[in-house]
Amino acid sequence: MRIAYQGEPGAYSEAAALRYSAHADVVPCESFDDVFRDVEGGKATHGILPVENSIGGSIHRNYDLLLEHNLPIVGEVELPIRHHLLVLPGTPIERVQRIYSHPQALAQCERFLRELPNVRVNPTYDTAGSAKLIREEGLADAGAIASERAAEVFELERLRSDIQDYSDNITRFLLIGRSTDPEAQLDKTTVVFSLSNEPGALFKALSVFALRELDLTKIESRPIRGRPWEYLFYVDIPVGRQDLRCARALVHLAEFARSLRTLGSYQSWKVRENATRVEPA
Amino acid sequence: MRIAYQGEPGAYSEAAALRYSAHADVVPCESFDDVFRDVEGGKATHGILPVENSIGGSIHRNYDLLLEHNLPIVGEVELPIRHHLLVLPGTPIERVQRIYSHPQALAQCERFLRELPNVRVNPTYDTAGSAKLIREEGLADAGAIASERAAEVFELERLRSDIQDYSDNITRFLLIGRSTDPEAQLDKTTVVFSLSNEPGALFKALSVFALRELDLTKIESRPIRGRPWEYLFYVDIPVGRQDLRCARALVHLAEFARSLRTLGSYQSWKVRENATRVEPA
Repeated sequence: MRIAYQGEPGAYSEAAALRYSAHADVVPCESFDDVFRDVEGGKATHGILPVENSIGGSIHRNYDLLLEHNLPIVGEVELPIRHHLLVLPGTPIERVQRIYSHPQALAQCERFLRELPNVRVNPTYDTAGSAKLIREEGLADAGAIASERAAEVFELERLRSDIQDYSDNITRFLLIGRSTDPEAQLDKTTVVFSLSNEPGALFKALSVFALRELDLTKIESRPIRGRPWEYLFYVDIPVGRQDLRCARALVHLAEFARSLRTLGSYQSWKVRENATRVEPA
Repeated sequence: MRIAYQGEPGAYSEAAALRYSAHADVVPCESFDDVFRDVEGGKATHGILPVENSIGGSIHRNYDLLLEHNLPIVGEVELPIRHHLLVLPGTPIERVQRIYSHPQALAQCERFLRELPNVRVNPTYDTAGSAKLIREEGLADAGAIASERAAEVFELERLRSDIQDYSDNITRFLLIGRSTDPEAQLDKTTVVFSLSNEPGALFKALSVFALRELDLTKIESRPIRGRPWEYLFYVDIPVGRQDLRCARALVHLAEFARSLRTLGSYQSWKVRENATRVEPA
């Protein structure tokens, strides 16, 4: 298994890939688009994408990319997020004048940041990339908010640990791939659909699941480009596609949906702290 | 009318404020939080907040802030977004090596940016702030993606015009305020609710509107902090609160919702290019 992820070594996506499969090779990519391209082009067998954080909400870009590309979702993993303030070894807190990190990570440490007076916050594309910046430019008056592993990779010191505002900070990642694991126990299905713009359309769409006692675990709407205020709906159904109720609900939905596509049926995998899945031999 | 907005002069939020009321005083703020604080503290009578873009989707931070604060929504305005590449006068395109802008604006000009080889993209907090940076630091090898008005304010040249990927690029802004316009024709109501975590709960909630033939124009879910994968739902109802069907639907919803709050009932105002609303005397 070769899993492509967005970010530098030490990124949370890398941790998610290694928790999904402890023995996987991991391939860093510059952007989420590159993750898809690496899998499509054969440089990786799988890709891993953050799609939702329990504090910050959905990462919409990845929902858009799932639709633009044709790679199915083949797995899901949840990762508890623990942020740390990383600095060059020996830097005291009083010297830290700038803090770099991804906007989502900065938002997740808002309370911590508010208590630091006179610190300038600099948003970047990547948590681990911010740690790399501190090391490569030798910034002795700056810090990065990133993971424990980013500290190891870039030989930085954890000046403050567990600085996230909420302890229940979990990110949900989807695994995309060209091949599926034949032994996977499919227990979740993600579909995307659009509806005609008429009264009660969404209500009617949700009825196909409710009438079959299928509880949706997630519903997400995204704008349709070029059609202002019309939406695509992404829903997660808590059973695999082999479940008859799921299959029937989707046939029912297809009767009146403008478009309907199954993005994947897969096994969801909740990771406890320090647990790893052992890849099937 | 004194309207607080986030950003530097020349920000799209400022344009939205002036289109809502051509004679309003406008007050720039550093953050969305500051917009709320300025209105609560009396420095402004109203605040204006972008909540959704027809390409990029919702601006979630502002949904969260509407809930944290107690200022009602008193109006809505739609603004067509036209992005331009701004540079110091005389800078040729070949010299532009870095482009600064807000991540949403960068995403909305993705195709344009892809065609520029060897240009580094730098995300910032603000479109107009990026224009200001070019001017203040005298960056002769950089550009900013921002509005026409930002070009005027910071005396920059429009090197490329209308560089957004989609012409149907519209941002929806909400006006918040301590006082309402007594002559407003209320035609939209926004509510937020949470539900018990049981099968079909959202379907049941939507039924209170569908059964009264009220079509929701928008539904948005946001995570509840500290309760992973539980959500708050924000919905827009296309009638004012004086409409009996709306009032009854909300009473019905309150019977079983865990929480329910009306964020405002207001007049929505669609702005055509170059149109402005004349403030009631």
